[in-house]
Amino acid sequence: MNKTNFKCDYAEGAHPLILEALARTNFEQLDGYGEDPYTRRAKEKILAACGCPDGEVFFLVGGTQTNETVISALLRGYEGVIAAETGHIAVHESGAVEFTGHKVLTLPQHLGKINPGELRDFLEAFHADPNKDHMVWPGMVYLSFPTEYGTLYSREELRAIHETAAGFGIPVFVDGARLAYGLTSPACEVALSELKDFADVFYIGGTKVGALCGEAVVFPRKGPAHFLTSVKQHGALLAKGRLLGIQFDVLFTDGLYWELGSHANEAAGVLKDILREKAIPFFLESPTNQQFVILENARMEALSGTIGFDVWQPYDETHTVVRFATSWATTPEALERLREVL
Amino acid sequence: MNKTNFKCDYAEGAHPLILEALARTNFEQLDGYGEDPYTRRAKEKILAACGCPDGEVFFLVGGTQTNETVISALLRGYEGVIAAETGHIAVHESGAVEFTGHKVLTLPQHLGKINPGELRDFLEAFHADPNKDHMVWPGMVYLSFPTEYGTLYSREELRAIHETAAGFGIPVFVDGARLAYGLTSPACEVALSELKDFADVFYIGGTKVGALCGEAVVFPRKGPAHFLTSVKQHGALLAKGRLLGIQFDVLFTDGLYWELGSHANEAAGVLKDILREKAIPFFLESPTNQQFVILENARMEALSGTIGFDVWQPYDETHTVVRFATSWATTPEALERLREVL
Amino acid sequence: MNKTNFKCDYAEGAHPLILEALARTNFEQLDGYGEDPYTRRAKEKILAACGCPDGEVFFLVGGTQTNETVISALLRGYEGVIAAETGHIAVHESGAVEFTGHKVLTLPQHLGKINPGELRDFLEAFHADPNKDHMVWPGMVYLSFPTEYGTLYSREELRAIHETAAGFGIPVFVDGARLAYGLTSPACEVALSELKDFADVFYIGGTKVGALCGEAVVFPRKGPAHFLTSVKQHGALLAKGRLLGIQFDVLFTDGLYWELGSHANEAAGVLKDILREKAIPFFLESPTNQQFVILENARMEALSGTIGFDVWQPYDETHTVVRFATSWATTPEALERLREVL
Amino acid sequence: MNKTNFKCDYAEGAHPLILEALARTNFEQLDGYGEDPYTRRAKEKILAACGCPDGEVFFLVGGTQTNETVISALLRGYEGVIAAETGHIAVHESGAVEFTGHKVLTLPQHLGKINPGELRDFLEAFHADPNKDHMVWPGMVYLSFPTEYGTLYSREELRAIHETAAGFGIPVFVDGARLAYGLTSPACEVALSELKDFADVFYIGGTKVGALCGEAVVFPRKGPAHFLTSVKQHGALLAKGRLLGIQFDVLFTDGLYWELGSHANEAAGVLKDILREKAIPFFLESPTNQQFVILENARMEALSGTIGFDVWQPYDETHTVVRFATSWATTPEALERLREVL
Repeated sequence: MNKTNFKCDYAEGAHPLILEALARTNFEQLDGYGEDPYTRRAKEKILAACGCPDGEVFFLVGGTQTNETVISALLRGYEGVIAAETGHIAVHESGAVEFTGHKVLTLPQHLGKINPGELRDFLEAFHADPNKDHMVWPGMVYLSFPTEYGTLYSREELRAIHETAAGFGIPVFVDGARLAYGLTSPACEVALSELKDFADVFYIGGTKVGALCGEAVVFPRKGPAHFLTSVKQHGALLAKGRLLGIQFDVLFTDGLYWELGSHANEAAGVLKDILREKAIPFFLESPTNQQFVILENARMEALSGTIGFDVWQPYDETHTVVRFATSWATTPEALERLREVL
Repeated sequence: MNKTNFKCDYAEGAHPLILEALARTNFEQLDGYGEDPYTRRAKEKILAACGCPDGEVFFLVGGTQTNETVISALLRGYEGVIAAETGHIAVHESGAVEFTGHKVLTLPQHLGKINPGELRDFLEAFHADPNKDHMVWPGMVYLSFPTEYGTLYSREELRAIHETAAGFGIPVFVDGARLAYGLTSPACEVALSELKDFADVFYIGGTKVGALCGEAVVFPRKGPAHFLTSVKQHGALLAKGRLLGIQFDVLFTDGLYWELGSHANEAAGVLKDILREKAIPFFLESPTNQQFVILENARMEALSGTIGFDVWQPYDETHTVVRFATSWATTPEALERLREVL
Repeated sequence: MNKTNFKCDYAEGAHPLILEALARTNFEQLDGYGEDPYTRRAKEKILAACGCPDGEVFFLVGGTQTNETVISALLRGYEGVIAAETGHIAVHESGAVEFTGHKVLTLPQHLGKINPGELRDFLEAFHADPNKDHMVWPGMVYLSFPTEYGTLYSREELRAIHETAAGFGIPVFVDGARLAYGLTSPACEVALSELKDFADVFYIGGTKVGALCGEAVVFPRKGPAHFLTSVKQHGALLAKGRLLGIQFDVLFTDGLYWELGSHANEAAGVLKDILREKAIPFFLESPTNQQFVILENARMEALSGTIGFDVWQPYDETHTVVRFATSWATTPEALERLREVL
Repeated sequence: MNKTNFKCDYAEGAHPLILEALARTNFEQLDGYGEDPYTRRAKEKILAACGCPDGEVFFLVGGTQTNETVISALLRGYEGVIAAETGHIAVHESGAVEFTGHKVLTLPQHLGKINPGELRDFLEAFHADPNKDHMVWPGMVYLSFPTEYGTLYSREELRAIHETAAGFGIPVFVDGARLAYGLTSPACEVALSELKDFADVFYIGGTKVGALCGEAVVFPRKGPAHFLTSVKQHGALLAKGRLLGIQFDVLFTDGLYWELGSHANEAAGVLKDILREKAIPFFLESPTNQQFVILENARMEALSGTIGFDVWQPYDETHTVVRFATSWATTPEALERLREVL
């Protein structure tokens, strides 16, 4: 990648404080599988930040793994999980959820989000269907926050979705692979400490927010029985649990997680100014670190030699939707370079 | 763990050269999912070391994950995998292989190993069984090298097992979670470059040999179609693939992987001397870094305050089998301390 | 069911010739699991009728079971199956396909059918997608013939679908739960003996065409290795295989299968006349035994006391789509009664 | 099979009363999927006979299917099922349980039975194991009654097993594929109405006791949520549910099920007399319809031309263990013929 990168938010390694902590603790002999004091401390900090001191935290390695482990641990065999048709689990996880035996039941997406009313209609229609015993029972609602399009659910949407799901006795799971970029967006209406009111389980993404790897699953109330064994069974239990515990300990010290999120959102603000300045039309309005614009194909081609971006989807015969992402590591120089090149 | 550790070989972080490489490359912007130059270079080095330049290498994160991904990718739905009854997949992976739909077909263990003759008998009996269509077809042989008891297959055993398996058209998979500790044992009869003659797929363990995490799966000839998608589906594809590529690049530079293995085996030599000196009986003869001894329960209790070891299994009413493990990071001081305390 | 039944095509037991054959052979002592001469004879007759004497036939018990057994036996772990969004496997099998680990990849339905051009577009888009390694690979095309709406693919559609699938190296599987009702429709453009040219595997439905139970899976060329073991593993291997063999032996003797199909289609012709006569609008044009009409809700309610029909889906606020099905067992009296009541 | 059959208990079709009932009701139009009055009546009769009027009954088609559906519906993802190493699910179901994601945890067999003390030891050892989170949690005990060797658990054994399992919070599942042959054995110490005290779920086998197919799963207290959907998902829900309902209605009318069991056991008494008379040694003592004897290989060969029996397992170089089974349909003539030929 000899280009100025706006392709994704995982192009660099880790925040320097994380590398320092790993180096500093390197020769401490610690128990494996998350039984070390750093992991314990990280869990406590996360539960405090989430406002649920009696909850449970588990550290897993990556997003797809986290999604399939949580979903299959919570669902019964006859249940599936509801997601937006653009949800990560529905499209870009190679069928990991189905591999564990469960169907992804898709709802239409609106800027990457499911609509609370459509969710209610879907659940009511299912339960009114005389053939429901021959169908997949909806057993969970999956949301991503921010979504795959960088958008955010409003407080009212989150409330309505959670209330609807609860009314049907099913949990809400929030995929927070980029949670920091959501929480620190000026448009965000909820705080981390409030997420417990809208979700029965969620994860706090590390990989895309300055960690080498790692996602923190939070059950704000109580996790399912023997979830650690499910984690092991899914190949998601790291022998050197310290690698995850130390990283999250650092991320949740002195507000680093929020700082990294804010940095990316501020960079995204500059990025949007540049794009507007260059009269490049937006495909949709995103308030977080991922920005989707429409590029003429010729321009896209020309640009691709110097700037890294992600080709998202065709727009029309001569245009393409392209994603520019900022991150915790985006530099002013990179933004300046983009301004010059565009 | 405020004790001198002999509990396991994953109590420290990573070899310093690995941390240095991670720090040095930290702000390079690299493509994700293993598409970076460090990963490519690591693959080339590994294939060269394995003597199979046309093979394929994939980096996964941990051992259980690697076992279940490889096994389920190679087996057809009606097949199971043969393993020693003490094989890691049969006992300590929370049923990960079964979770993917396949039975582990166990053979008796002899010092942790399967016996080539018993393997042949088993396969012949299966194929002679008039009810075989109602049974699980043996579709693969799983070996660990070293085994869970630290023992090693002889060259002749490996040859006989591979020949038998090949005769029945099924592959041999070698779990090398501790491969370095096997290859560098004075008792080892095969070189890494020869493993391809005895295995159709194997993995080179990083987690237990000085990496933070990571296992390198080697298909010496050709991997199965779209194995990367299987890796993704099993939640085993790291977004920041660099984390694995850089580590293995370091491990396979200037013979570091062998150096780390030798270090542990030399430490194990000293450990064995100490244990003999203290007249502690060995449970079995292991030529690698894991040593199994029989401790009187009272002594075990007393020792447990100052020395970290792993309680393996009851021996009799008053004795227990205990594992002491050395590693790439074992210090002379730790050994000296053990000598004093025992 | 104290009503005149048009609810489904499985409301009666079996064709009398089947019951007679079961009774006649009842005390013959036969080998189990399909190793009896009736099963062998039925297989031969079916292969002859299908024009593929070197093919393979397996008898399973029901449709969902057949679908999930065939699909999971043919797919690799990373593959999914393409189906119309209204396909039986996508909607009314309680996620049986997903339970075996595979995603159902849905295409839009057009009168219950997938469109060959859209299939081609989907496959081309998949293979052009730079992220395809992170997605579910399309590994099979599933069609129902007739479809869930009673419609039929034209010869040209079948040809185009098969050619497209073959071009991408994936098989076509035809769900023939109601195959007789398709083959004997005046609108049908293919014969049973030609199905092999358009499908790599298909099944001939018994349950809905006069058998107590039973579906005959036909691999016109060669079945997958050890398919019988897959059948057993899926709980689909009947100990008294005779129950299936004898029934299909009868169905494929003297053209009974076609006779039963024709009977239902002729009854459907009368049914359509009655519906037209009563000015009841059709929801769509179906050339087979299932007819879908639009009823005013009040009229539907009133009718439901005397006539059995299937409530299919809401049409608008005041109307509902309703299915009337004829079958091999529909009597002139039942049709006459319907004419009176409507 | 042009021989006098003692090979198995499913060589004939069905008891004539069953065929008569099928014929008599054949043209009644009945709702599908078990919603017919015969199925309802059969369920009521079975619950009455089992002494649990508030329980639930489900009809499935075959034994392997029933085992995997019940087991996977009751287990959580991280659990496995305990069985004797000779249990049907452990050996002769092609890995159906593993296909649903669960390990079969085997205990030694003693005349086909697990030992209550060994069960307790196993469960205690598991819960005392410091590594249990890395292992498969025992989540159910599977028994067959009679066992695969025709033997029966005593009342005290059943009580001890159930008490032990209950003490660990896990259910006992009794596979009653041949339940009638157990219940009507003179050696049987429990009645059908008492099984509810020793089992949390059991099934009453039809296929091997005079039905064409069919097994009745009984939850003496309450079944798991949406079990019907699990049945559908496993491909075990028959469209023509009447086929199962009518058969069990007949079997549970006027004590037919017991009558058929007694018939087989009486025939087994004659069979044992003949075998003793001919000085053929028994491999083990079985009080039910399956008898296991040791035959010289030459004699076995000679006999195989005229008598059907099942080759069970090698005994020594020159002898083989062979099974003779009587059934509900065994005739005096067949026994007489055996006496002559032996």
